[in-house]
Amino acid sequence: MSHILLRNGLILSMNERREMFEGGDVLVENDIIKAVGAIPEESIPEGTEVVDVSGRMVLPGLVNTHVHLCQQLGRGLGDDVDLLTWLHDRTWPYELAMTEEDVHVSALACCLELIKSGVTCFAEPGGRHVDAMGRAVREAGIRGILARSTMDCGEGIRPEHRESTDEALAVQLELHDRWHDTAEGRIRYWMGLRTIFNNSNELLCRTKEIADARGIGMHMHVSEVKEEVDFARATRGASTVEHLNNLGVLGPNLLAVHTVWLTPRELDLFRLHDVKVSHNPGAAMRVLGFAHVPEMLARGICVSLGTDGAPCNNRMDMMDEMYLAAVIHKGRTLDPTTVPAERMLEMATVNGARAVLWDDQIGSLTPGKKADLIVIDPMNGPGSVPVHDPVSSLVYSMHSSNVTHSMCNGRWLMQDRVVAGLDEAAILAEAQERAGHIRRRAGIELKPRFPVVKVR
Amino acid sequence: MSHILLRNGLILSMNERREMFEGGDVLVENDIIKAVGAIPEESIPEGTEVVDVSGRMVLPGLVNTHVHLCQQLGRGLGDDVDLLTWLHDRTWPYELAMTEEDVHVSALACCLELIKSGVTCFAEPGGRHVDAMGRAVREAGIRGILARSTMDCGEGIRPEHRESTDEALAVQLELHDRWHDTAEGRIRYWMGLRTIFNNSNELLCRTKEIADARGIGMHMHVSEVKEEVDFARATRGASTVEHLNNLGVLGPNLLAVHTVWLTPRELDLFRLHDVKVSHNPGAAMRVLGFAHVPEMLARGICVSLGTDGAPCNNRMDMMDEMYLAAVIHKGRTLDPTTVPAERMLEMATVNGARAVLWDDQIGSLTPGKKADLIVIDPMNGPGSVPVHDPVSSLVYSMHSSNVTHSMCNGRWLMQDRVVAGLDEAAILAEAQERAGHIRRRAGIELKPRFPVVKVR
Repeated sequence: MSHILLRNGLILSMNERREMFEGGDVLVENDIIKAVGAIPEESIPEGTEVVDVSGRMVLPGLVNTHVHLCQQLGRGLGDDVDLLTWLHDRTWPYELAMTEEDVHVSALACCLELIKSGVTCFAEPGGRHVDAMGRAVREAGIRGILARSTMDCGEGIRPEHRESTDEALAVQLELHDRWHDTAEGRIRYWMGLRTIFNNSNELLCRTKEIADARGIGMHMHVSEVKEEVDFARATRGASTVEHLNNLGVLGPNLLAVHTVWLTPRELDLFRLHDVKVSHNPGAAMRVLGFAHVPEMLARGICVSLGTDGAPCNNRMDMMDEMYLAAVIHKGRTLDPTTVPAERMLEMATVNGARAVLWDDQIGSLTPGKKADLIVIDPMNGPGSVPVHDPVSSLVYSMHSSNVTHSMCNGRWLMQDRVVAGLDEAAILAEAQERAGHIRRRAGIELKPRFPVVKVR
Repeated sequence: MSHILLRNGLILSMNERREMFEGGDVLVENDIIKAVGAIPEESIPEGTEVVDVSGRMVLPGLVNTHVHLCQQLGRGLGDDVDLLTWLHDRTWPYELAMTEEDVHVSALACCLELIKSGVTCFAEPGGRHVDAMGRAVREAGIRGILARSTMDCGEGIRPEHRESTDEALAVQLELHDRWHDTAEGRIRYWMGLRTIFNNSNELLCRTKEIADARGIGMHMHVSEVKEEVDFARATRGASTVEHLNNLGVLGPNLLAVHTVWLTPRELDLFRLHDVKVSHNPGAAMRVLGFAHVPEMLARGICVSLGTDGAPCNNRMDMMDEMYLAAVIHKGRTLDPTTVPAERMLEMATVNGARAVLWDDQIGSLTPGKKADLIVIDPMNGPGSVPVHDPVSSLVYSMHSSNVTHSMCNGRWLMQDRVVAGLDEAAILAEAQERAGHIRRRAGIELKPRFPVVKVR
């Protein structure tokens, strides 16, 4: 048995009572949190690795409930263009030009950014080459839920990628068999649904049946843009959410992403059916609009946080997303007390764990749960000093650079900002090189923002 | 004569043609930019310090046109509370409890954050203990414009701080004589005006006369909150901007900060009189509302960027402010093409220099201008890799951690993230210690966000 003791820090447990232990300890035994609070000297097992965290904060690893691992190499391809250009001329051609190994490198580069910004668990909405993503997650040591982007109807699908409902489901069942509950339990597999634009009623209903039968979740973009809701009304006879409700798809195992254009009645439906929400503030600000987060929280809906993918948000950084989500809703409502820092931290931890149906094992520092945690140093730069209120400082002042250590399943993912097990410099160099090759293969040309003068 | 050559980088000159030199050089002679572009081997003076910047970007130092140096130790004191609590129970008592040496440490800590986030020039709206701030700026080596917070009427001023219009102006003239054009020309001094709530007509008019006569600017919070505009209408017979216009105060040397609540006609007045705007997106999102930045840019108004003070925004970080300003106006207008990255970079450099009336010497990498520049490494972390478009990557993906070097007036402020001339660790430790003492002296109690359990 291996033991690691984090000693004498400010422990933000996020447990049911939300206790903050000042000068507290966390004892990890193998992959499990053994004890939190005061660990008497005599109960520290021999051979324990002791890490002094005085002056630092320890909290549960952050949960990113919506991130496209396969889009990391397309970061910045969709900046400052309208939605159709973004989708048809940038993101889709780029994704289609990627090889299996491109996706592997993309996923590794994304895992690096996730780990360095405090994330220990994520949910992937599905892309191509799921096996390549799975390999990367296994190597990175992080916890994650994979899915496959699934479409069985509608426009925009190239002939070679068209598939029937049967085919779309069969491929996913096969991936579920291969990936679910692998890598010491760190990897799970969920059913993917792209959007109402490309998902038939049959696919929606059969996906729900399978998810219920296998005890897993469904990951779907819902009410993302206004055009989607109009499309659903015109073609399905009801808004996206009402339609999902009519089909019986709403339920506690539906992770609904973005959910910007919800009516009050649809919010009530979410509450009624305990639908989980992934709020992605960066993507929302870039192209979508404001999700009604204060209204969701007031209803007791489980709202979590996600970053979305790199062509859409550019920052796969949950520390930034916490900040952004905390400020934009104040600006929209002109109420500086709305969505306070403590709610934000809940969204990024306990709510995230609930949203991905993993709250029995992660989301708080509670004895018996998996040892997924991060260490934060408020004093390692001028941007977070002084600290008067650690929770608000975490949300409003700190950056990913304040995250010094990360642990997943009892193993160090990062110590003193050095990621274990992955060669950061090599991965980033390869990511940069492949990114340009893919762009050229996809025929995407970006006009320089300013005139270029070639000197060398 | 000393020479420094930055060699073989991507030079974002921000000159009149906005040229980007690929594989370009910048030659610095003493405090001046001598040449930009291709520097032939034979024209490199002997003894030149050569810095290889291949793979990196070189751009003008960022200009922060509104930052309260004296508020740095109050970071996070005003989180998640309403505006009156923020002002009366938090910010004012805290500021009043600060000693001269507290302000000095506050200003040093703020300069550290500014330097490490790429700022080489700032404008301070005025606080107490201007001399202490001036000392800090002199020591830090950064460029800045000081002012004194000035109030001669209205509510909220404690008896011991009341002063007449004559007194308020006399103190400023004395400070102007002491600080203007000092520290090798790095420090300038401007006239301060707090807000219409606390500034009489006489103060406004005489301030304008003095500023015009001395060839300096005026730094004032304008149309910050809706209540301010209502107050001006009720007490001055016109909105803040119309009132300033009636008094003849609008002009090219007025730096108007926040300007959230402007009407289309007031925007036209700004354009007509070439009033300069400091947009502070972080503060706006926290408490104020959305400034109409796309509308200002469309009119050709000179919009610059500022961070505001630490109790108000928490991040004195222009890299974050560029990101925030670029995304929030897209969210508000639902137009992903509005306020594109290239406009944002102009706001943070050339517009900033114009806004502080210093564009003859700074704001672009142009031969003959002062050598104020920064070096950016896109590859030093997973958050900014890959780069497809350097300008959009800078605005949407990068953080202050990507800024590796900073130079002001031809002198290194920072190399490889190490700040020259300031003992970062010592300043931050002292800032943290003093911050708590001031809070206790001011009698400010912050309720813990979660229950505290004391272990040690």
